[in-house]
Amino acid sequence: MLAETLAAIRPADPRALAEARAYQDRLTKPKGSLGALEDVAVRLAGAAGAVPPPMPVPAALAIFAADHGVHARGVTPWPQEVTVQMVANFLAGGAVANAFAAQAGASVTVVDVGVAADLPDAPGLVKRKIAYGTADLSAGPAMTVDQAVQALEAGISVALDLVAEGARCLITGDMGIANTTASAALIAAFTGRDPAEVTGRGTGIDDDTHTHKIAIVREALAVNSATPVGSQPSDALRVLAGVGGFEHAAIAGFVLGGARARVPVILDGVIAGAAALVAAALDPAVADHCVAGHRSAEPGHAAALDHLGLRPLVELELRVGEGTGGLLAHPLVCAAVRVMHDVATFDSAGVTEKPV
Amino acid sequence: MLAETLAAIRPADPRALAEARAYQDRLTKPKGSLGALEDVAVRLAGAAGAVPPPMPVPAALAIFAADHGVHARGVTPWPQEVTVQMVANFLAGGAVANAFAAQAGASVTVVDVGVAADLPDAPGLVKRKIAYGTADLSAGPAMTVDQAVQALEAGISVALDLVAEGARCLITGDMGIANTTASAALIAAFTGRDPAEVTGRGTGIDDDTHTHKIAIVREALAVNSATPVGSQPSDALRVLAGVGGFEHAAIAGFVLGGARARVPVILDGVIAGAAALVAAALDPAVADHCVAGHRSAEPGHAAALDHLGLRPLVELELRVGEGTGGLLAHPLVCAAVRVMHDVATFDSAGVTEKPV
Repeated sequence: MLAETLAAIRPADPRALAEARAYQDRLTKPKGSLGALEDVAVRLAGAAGAVPPPMPVPAALAIFAADHGVHARGVTPWPQEVTVQMVANFLAGGAVANAFAAQAGASVTVVDVGVAADLPDAPGLVKRKIAYGTADLSAGPAMTVDQAVQALEAGISVALDLVAEGARCLITGDMGIANTTASAALIAAFTGRDPAEVTGRGTGIDDDTHTHKIAIVREALAVNSATPVGSQPSDALRVLAGVGGFEHAAIAGFVLGGARARVPVILDGVIAGAAALVAAALDPAVADHCVAGHRSAEPGHAAALDHLGLRPLVELELRVGEGTGGLLAHPLVCAAVRVMHDVATFDSAGVTEKPV
Repeated sequence: MLAETLAAIRPADPRALAEARAYQDRLTKPKGSLGALEDVAVRLAGAAGAVPPPMPVPAALAIFAADHGVHARGVTPWPQEVTVQMVANFLAGGAVANAFAAQAGASVTVVDVGVAADLPDAPGLVKRKIAYGTADLSAGPAMTVDQAVQALEAGISVALDLVAEGARCLITGDMGIANTTASAALIAAFTGRDPAEVTGRGTGIDDDTHTHKIAIVREALAVNSATPVGSQPSDALRVLAGVGGFEHAAIAGFVLGGARARVPVILDGVIAGAAALVAAALDPAVADHCVAGHRSAEPGHAAALDHLGLRPLVELELRVGEGTGGLLAHPLVCAAVRVMHDVATFDSAGVTEKPV
């Protein structure tokens, strides 16, 4: 399924891009006056190969949950049980992601790709567990390459299933105590930045823990020979297996699945940024199908977005994860696309254009 | 009505502020992890005097339209007729503001407070014309103090009418060719900044026109002795009458009306920022009831928001006006408030808090 997906992904359509850009300039507004939203609408036109692009509704959020062997190294003060507790909170509708999804009119699907506990069946829970958490990435590979591919394919199939059920916009979400450590390692590996530049304080850690976390990321990169990365898909898979998490692999697959289906994917925060680097290393054309929902407070996130050439829509110092930043961006993306559907042209409205 | 409104406005309730802040820390998310959105929710609780604050729905956009005598001085390449053409476009549903309002589920009301033409009756149009445009602010007062009060009271009554009809969030909008010139003059007068710092390129002008526009703002401030401003309401009214526009006066009234009704007001761009400075000069407590929707590309806007102590939610280089930036922020404000309604606490959800 991975090979088939990679073969099916197309880059943006240059004709739709040009047509959308020209159409923006005919609408009753000063030229370029919608700023970054014009770029979003034009990019979605290119990704869909249609002007105007389809409205990105309804939206579907998928929260990929997993645990991390590196938790044992003391990179976070939160106990690992919080992953499973928060999964229960999502399924009960009590988390911030649920509130934001309700606001955006988005469905919520929780996907267990590697939680370190058995989860009871529940509506909205998809069980695709690869293992009970990854191995400790600072001592060796976090997972095997086979497991990485399984997790990628879980993400692809969740994306394709949601699209088959009617979703016209996919939003990435994640839950996994310690997953900012794996994110930092992936971002350092794929961007070539130093771990000290891209390792943040996650949900909130003190100076000593932060210093320790940076050292762990360095160990992980060294023990897995995860930097610099080559340019073959097999290199990307090896790095992902070495220092990633199951949710990173699954989100990378989810992004690939969205690109294959030509449905836009709104990326959430630093975990999604790290996963999108993996997806883009497998096929650079996926970036054409992504929108950066927000820029989180994690320093590695900006590095990932720079590398992907994406500009975030929301910058409000969020550091919740769960897909919250992607959900907040959804109405902005809708507004950008709606302009191309609804707004009159200078000619049709009889409005005088500015003399050139 | 102005005096009665000023007497009725209350600052934020300190007890509700403290209670809302403490409640945020009980919700199932890392402390402070919603960044600027936590501040918005807490501020709305203080403004409403209730925890959680009411959901800010439905929202109502009011677009105040007027013309400007200073247009004759060549501060913009757009012909003045565009004001009346765009009013027709709003009423026909063809402008960007209409598309964004549809996205936000907001009603659209257009208020003629000073368009330089007679407008036919139309659904959604409220006629409160003070005059056929202001006088040239670079040659003397743009309006009389009586006219300024009339326009303020028009804005107050539109706000109160919309709230009486059910609106629980007010969004400011504006239309008026040349109104960034008056905005720059108001911002320079109320913040004490130099005209060169706060005069921008509006909807797009060349270097020569920009230099000329700065000189016009300087003339306006000098001929109206509009800087520095004193601290009495009469001083604020004199400055408003000297260098403002009818839409600035009406939006200032609209903000006062929202504060009086304890319904939050989302400010749009630089015109709203200038108007909010007028409102805050009349009663500093109004700022507690305002949310800065976005930061526009106009340099004076950041100066106005700094002076008001407001942080913008959206920063995407918009320069459309019409209320578009305020409309884009509305779902973010809703999301911030919804968290206080919907999200579980650590206790109720059985989620372990981070060890301190």
